[in-house]
Amino acid sequence: MSGITATYLIHDEKNLEKKAEGIALGLTIGSWTDLPELTQKQLQQHKGKVVTIEEFDADDKVSVFLDKRVKKGIVKIFYPGVNFSHDLPAILATVFGKLSLDGEVKLLDLDFSDDLLAEFQGPKFGISGIREKLGVYDRPLLMSIFKGVIGRDLSFLKNQLKDQVLGGVDLVKDDEILFENPLTPFEQRISAGKQVLNEVYEQTGHKAMYAVHLSGKTYDLKEKAKRAAELGADALLFNVFAYGLDVLQSLAEDKDIGIPLMAHPAVSGALASSSLYGISHSLLLGKLLRYSGADFSLFPSPYGSVALEREAALSIGAACKENVQLKETFPVPSAGIHPGLVPVLIQDFGLDSVINAGGGVHGHPNGAAAGGKAFRAAIDASLQGISLTEKAQENADLRIALDLWGQVEVSK
Amino acid sequence: MSGITATYLIHDEKNLEKKAEGIALGLTIGSWTDLPELTQKQLQQHKGKVVTIEEFDADDKVSVFLDKRVKKGIVKIFYPGVNFSHDLPAILATVFGKLSLDGEVKLLDLDFSDDLLAEFQGPKFGISGIREKLGVYDRPLLMSIFKGVIGRDLSFLKNQLKDQVLGGVDLVKDDEILFENPLTPFEQRISAGKQVLNEVYEQTGHKAMYAVHLSGKTYDLKEKAKRAAELGADALLFNVFAYGLDVLQSLAEDKDIGIPLMAHPAVSGALASSSLYGISHSLLLGKLLRYSGADFSLFPSPYGSVALEREAALSIGAACKENVQLKETFPVPSAGIHPGLVPVLIQDFGLDSVINAGGGVHGHPNGAAAGGKAFRAAIDASLQGISLTEKAQENADLRIALDLWGQVEVSK
Repeated sequence: MSGITATYLIHDEKNLEKKAEGIALGLTIGSWTDLPELTQKQLQQHKGKVVTIEEFDADDKVSVFLDKRVKKGIVKIFYPGVNFSHDLPAILATVFGKLSLDGEVKLLDLDFSDDLLAEFQGPKFGISGIREKLGVYDRPLLMSIFKGVIGRDLSFLKNQLKDQVLGGVDLVKDDEILFENPLTPFEQRISAGKQVLNEVYEQTGHKAMYAVHLSGKTYDLKEKAKRAAELGADALLFNVFAYGLDVLQSLAEDKDIGIPLMAHPAVSGALASSSLYGISHSLLLGKLLRYSGADFSLFPSPYGSVALEREAALSIGAACKENVQLKETFPVPSAGIHPGLVPVLIQDFGLDSVINAGGGVHGHPNGAAAGGKAFRAAIDASLQGISLTEKAQENADLRIALDLWGQVEVSK
Repeated sequence: MSGITATYLIHDEKNLEKKAEGIALGLTIGSWTDLPELTQKQLQQHKGKVVTIEEFDADDKVSVFLDKRVKKGIVKIFYPGVNFSHDLPAILATVFGKLSLDGEVKLLDLDFSDDLLAEFQGPKFGISGIREKLGVYDRPLLMSIFKGVIGRDLSFLKNQLKDQVLGGVDLVKDDEILFENPLTPFEQRISAGKQVLNEVYEQTGHKAMYAVHLSGKTYDLKEKAKRAAELGADALLFNVFAYGLDVLQSLAEDKDIGIPLMAHPAVSGALASSSLYGISHSLLLGKLLRYSGADFSLFPSPYGSVALEREAALSIGAACKENVQLKETFPVPSAGIHPGLVPVLIQDFGLDSVINAGGGVHGHPNGAAAGGKAFRAAIDASLQGISLTEKAQENADLRIALDLWGQVEVSK
């Protein structure tokens, strides 16, 4: 049957079966038992259904924290597709609208029936399309980010971009807090970026992409994105969660915006950080970003100081590449990444992932170009099946990086 | 100085001063001490500043829950307005973008400098404009909501609307989970609603407004809202948080959409429910909705089963009417409202509020019209300074309601 099955983690004092029944009815037809039989027949196809209820041992820490004795359960509820228009705002308002306000309920997952899923186009390029653009098929991509660019001019950005790309990074992304500004306006960044990337390509034969930050008012974004595509921008960085998933989807579906979309997780922590409320990381930064058309999903890696728990980070990576009829989204575990982490990154997120570094590129004692080279050497070593230590014997950039940041052993 | 001061509640193991300094720099210019003096001069105007740090006694329950010994503090940080474009997505990404992912940080408040505030138009009608539309100046407004309308046809909706309005409610809102559907399409709901309200007006002289649910894809909303205005819709109900605050703002600022906007809190619980993460209720459902142009803000009342803590609910009401150069937003505390709560509602949210009932209108033993009349009698009693019990002696509808739901004493 057409519809969506939502999975919730619920902590509640009351009987979970009653709570689940209340949700299934309350978020669909409202009431049931007091309806005449004829009306029940008419409304049957609209009625939400409790699919499963699993009760777990209550967690004492949660009860103490909440100041009430709670039961813990995972509840699955089915919402008929006939009840809502097939856009994400309607879906979210149905499965987690009023319910998001109703105590300790966290939305863990959504399962779309095939006909509903078919209404989502997903990434326009995805992992395969990005690999084709770059001509890189056999290794994780390497990305780096601009640093400290607020208040700086175009020549500063150009120099920084050049240093990064000379080190062999495949992608460079704008700073997500660099907005429209007189020193480095959007369109000029695109042109300047193209110029730098072309120069490096002519000089070295290395091809890279620059993701320019698409920002501004919601209703100006499409025109701005089209203009970016016309100017030859390689990709757009977008703070999806400062807007809405549906905006991302509309950008991805627009045929005149024919460039990859890179979703930044800014603001998403407000939705996903709590273990009791909000939306799970895998759903928000994995499945829904992919359904909405993100070619890349950035999220905190499990290794740095701004870190996700390992299980949460891995679940995002898995959702980006889950087996559904949509192109795959590149998982981009970010923050705290240095060359010594490359083997662990590949183990945790696979060859089809993006290794993304800020300080790990810019903080290299010999500069950003050396930083990029150290990463590329670490990636080569992993593919060759040799240890970083061994590789470092022939690669000074990597050796210096490992001396500074150390390396993390892959757990067997 | 032009800019925004953000207030955060932080739970952290580390030194709060260091954390605060890291935020102020990390979310603006990146680094400071290692910059040459000339560069420091150039970047001075872009540098974030720690305004205050207040440290509180750590809460043991929080440390136990988080499995780490945390300090607790309230930190204020100033972000120069020159760093971001003056739209809400840029503001949110600056003050709570990456930071929302950085451990136990909750955004409590944002203070806009006058020049920044001046770029927000706020509600087009506000409390005063809505009162003018209804011709009601001296009492709280009364609102009721459609119930169980999924799968029902237009005649069902018309009957329900008529019953509600005959009881003297001032506003009726669509169900926020009723989307575009073949039985009761948007435009037909508007026309049918107008017809019913006109009939009641001719019959009784009572004027009411019907807020129709504006839903669908983000980039279709403006056209749909304009069409609604052309068709004579009284107001638009909007699930802001299934889209984005900036979408609401753009709808409010559009001169061709000249009708009031009613913000529903659906999905907002995912952002506001946690005491450790996310965004405070007063900021999200009060200040930001008002700045974005909501004429009404619905939120869970502190009285029902889907309830906010009293302090949180009151803080939303206060933010709706805080003294700034914008029209005021009508606070609409909702859920669990019955006539016996009217004196408490007026005490808690003032005469300038909307009393909004679902079950408290529809569940009246003598039907929705009697339900509305019971509320109106309770409102009259409160204004006359007489007790509900006294009023119930002359008003059977109120007496029956009080018998069913009881009454809540106003605390002196």
